[in-house]
Amino acid sequence: MFSKETYIKRRASLCKEVEDGICIFLGNNLVGMNYADNEYPFRQDSTFLYFWGLDYPGLAAILDCDSGDEFIFGDELTIDDIVWTGDMPTLKENALRVGVTKTAPLKDFKAYIDKARQQNHTVRFLPPYRGEHNIRLLDLLDIKPSEQTARADKKFIRAVVNMRIHKTPEEIAAIEEAVDISTLMHLKAYRMARPGVHESEIAAAVLQEACCRPGTSLAFPTIATTAGHVLHNHGFVHTLKEGEIFLLDAGAENSLHYAGDLSSSMPVSERFSEQQELIYNIHLRSFEAAVKELRPGNPYRNAHLAAAETVVEGLKDLGLFKGNPRDIAESGAYAIVFPCGTGHMMGLDVHDMENLGEQFVGYADGEKKSTQFGFKSLRLSRKLEPGFVFTVEPGIYFIPQLIDLWKAEGKFKEFINYDKFESWKNFTGLRNELDYLITEDGARMLGTIKKPMTLEEVYNAKQS
Amino acid sequence: MFSKETYIKRRASLCKEVEDGICIFLGNNLVGMNYADNEYPFRQDSTFLYFWGLDYPGLAAILDCDSGDEFIFGDELTIDDIVWTGDMPTLKENALRVGVTKTAPLKDFKAYIDKARQQNHTVRFLPPYRGEHNIRLLDLLDIKPSEQTARADKKFIRAVVNMRIHKTPEEIAAIEEAVDISTLMHLKAYRMARPGVHESEIAAAVLQEACCRPGTSLAFPTIATTAGHVLHNHGFVHTLKEGEIFLLDAGAENSLHYAGDLSSSMPVSERFSEQQELIYNIHLRSFEAAVKELRPGNPYRNAHLAAAETVVEGLKDLGLFKGNPRDIAESGAYAIVFPCGTGHMMGLDVHDMENLGEQFVGYADGEKKSTQFGFKSLRLSRKLEPGFVFTVEPGIYFIPQLIDLWKAEGKFKEFINYDKFESWKNFTGLRNELDYLITEDGARMLGTIKKPMTLEEVYNAKQS
Repeated sequence: MFSKETYIKRRASLCKEVEDGICIFLGNNLVGMNYADNEYPFRQDSTFLYFWGLDYPGLAAILDCDSGDEFIFGDELTIDDIVWTGDMPTLKENALRVGVTKTAPLKDFKAYIDKARQQNHTVRFLPPYRGEHNIRLLDLLDIKPSEQTARADKKFIRAVVNMRIHKTPEEIAAIEEAVDISTLMHLKAYRMARPGVHESEIAAAVLQEACCRPGTSLAFPTIATTAGHVLHNHGFVHTLKEGEIFLLDAGAENSLHYAGDLSSSMPVSERFSEQQELIYNIHLRSFEAAVKELRPGNPYRNAHLAAAETVVEGLKDLGLFKGNPRDIAESGAYAIVFPCGTGHMMGLDVHDMENLGEQFVGYADGEKKSTQFGFKSLRLSRKLEPGFVFTVEPGIYFIPQLIDLWKAEGKFKEFINYDKFESWKNFTGLRNELDYLITEDGARMLGTIKKPMTLEEVYNAKQS
Repeated sequence: MFSKETYIKRRASLCKEVEDGICIFLGNNLVGMNYADNEYPFRQDSTFLYFWGLDYPGLAAILDCDSGDEFIFGDELTIDDIVWTGDMPTLKENALRVGVTKTAPLKDFKAYIDKARQQNHTVRFLPPYRGEHNIRLLDLLDIKPSEQTARADKKFIRAVVNMRIHKTPEEIAAIEEAVDISTLMHLKAYRMARPGVHESEIAAAVLQEACCRPGTSLAFPTIATTAGHVLHNHGFVHTLKEGEIFLLDAGAENSLHYAGDLSSSMPVSERFSEQQELIYNIHLRSFEAAVKELRPGNPYRNAHLAAAETVVEGLKDLGLFKGNPRDIAESGAYAIVFPCGTGHMMGLDVHDMENLGEQFVGYADGEKKSTQFGFKSLRLSRKLEPGFVFTVEPGIYFIPQLIDLWKAEGKFKEFINYDKFESWKNFTGLRNELDYLITEDGARMLGTIKKPMTLEEVYNAKQS
């Protein structure tokens, strides 16, 4: 938890931005896996954490920007509870640690809102992302679940995004801790990836590294696969084989729930094949091209285009593309080997504030997200500002189904040599990913431990 | 997945038991941790798995016991999806593997139910346990979330319980695999528990062991603590210290989602203190007393009472209780050191079918669960039958808050020497737990690897 003053200041700033109305915050509850009491690990809502700091289930809060009132709602433990849980600080005590003097039982939450609505105060809420939120909003505001996201308060969303998007030094330190743990997770994988090892063994070792410190955990479900070209890939089904590329995309949350997010690609054998080295190095150049674009005032979209152009340039030398690399990047034809975006904001969420809407987080006011395949997966496009933290993760993927689909449609025939692609269909895919902070005059890679990037570093990491 | 015939037979048996009506089954969906697409690991609903076998999100099913129809509802992947996921079997193909020939898009699920309701068929559903279930039942049947559990179908519940409660040989083999993985998890902890190690390090190692095989995972949140007397204890906050008792309660799910559930108590130092050995051995005797009661026709309640009586007997020798141990057990006074039940059913859920209601699972028809502290935590009481699988886990806990509370209330003064308890308040607590199957003529401990139980076995496991 940060200092009491941090939370007091954040709430004051928020009221200043939204100007008026009653902002409601739903803390997360526990979710049952296969029955109510067999619970998934608790994860507090990130916006609740940001403004109210308290990291346990069963809470809600109100920031009343009309009256200035601040309330945390929750039920105190009874003496019967304490027999099972041991002594715990009261809600009152916890609330004081984040500068809130008013607490009340949960049943008063709805009563407060009912009264505010009767008095025609604006009641503002954020978009729900769990069934439990839908139920609570239905109960509190009588809005049907299917209509809740559309009726979430834009002014409240924008205000939260504008605050959370600029990371303070104490937040950056927390992120850097998460990145360092993430690097340790990846170093384990470099050492473990060899023929005969199952993906689940590496994923489990990575998980152990993420969880072995008090309060730390995975920031998102691990991808650990020899099928790196399958981008929505969360199962662990393969045994690693000689000659394959193993791809790990994994990151930790530190105990304050700030995320790290890294990707690594490595040979299962001692070294990549010549062909793999070729693609890996094109990828490294595209990574560097993207990083060169990271500075205040430059749109992240330029980093994406630079990465795309460099990938195309390299693959053009292999005969896969034809024409001007910049044109191929701008047309969207590059997406046949790089259908994702180059990166995304990162903070209390690994895709920071994704629940509030990518349009608000990654795009400037009035800048519309593309609907074109490839560009539509670009989560971050807007001009960069000091304090932004995000990932850089260009990749090169040979996706047989995508190649066949586009070939059949004759898509971008002027740029793509489909015949050449046939012999690359079994390549799979690769990417690396690092995390960056925009500073006053440029960008800084986050983390104090070096994640392997060059071929030499990769081969050394495998031997370490 | 079991054979197609297994699922066909199960569904036929279910229709025979419920006789008529439309049974609806909600497959589980993915739940977002901190935004919709950052998902908790998927866990299918256990009853859905039992009857329909399919282990992925986005499904629902109908068993129409009036017409004999069987439908699995779900949406097929589009070609756009396949670009991201790779080739996957269709719903049609998956459904055939579990003997279901009729599939339809999810939107037809509600249409089928609407039609059935118009035609006055009985629509039967099971109690919801996730917000997503509440939303779906509200949408399908227009029943308010707060009323859904009460309106769940008792006949459907009873029929499911009566089937799932008797484990078949193939289910027992799956459980035994889960128990073996669980034992490996515990053996790791015996080796790791020593001064200076943090609880989270052991919990992470245990987690790794649970997850390092394809499709296996934790069956429930691990308890790994030096405060074993705090029974609702899921944080990892302590560094282990010389002289403490470390308690691990952890188990794995195998790839078919059958659970194992074991507990171990071990010294952080090389050996327990004399006082700890004394209590540990009383506990072992109570464990054996419970196991002696495991046979067909004997109520599990007798195993609980035998464990309680033996604990009281041992602690009476130390002056903590006075009077007749059997009376102390039957009065409920034993619960001052043993507030939990001795065990619970285990299967596809670690507390098997807890979402369907403990009353139906652990108690015979007409046998009412007690509301008295101690006995009310007894999840399993009914007469044992061949094929029942359950845990045995008596413990001894010195809970300062409970001792103070009962002392202040003067509870069971005739049985409890409160003055003597004062000097035991810092003991913390301990338990061991193993899993058993009721056979035709007795009971069999599950698992092929020996978990340490005696002091000698514990000390050896620490050195191994």
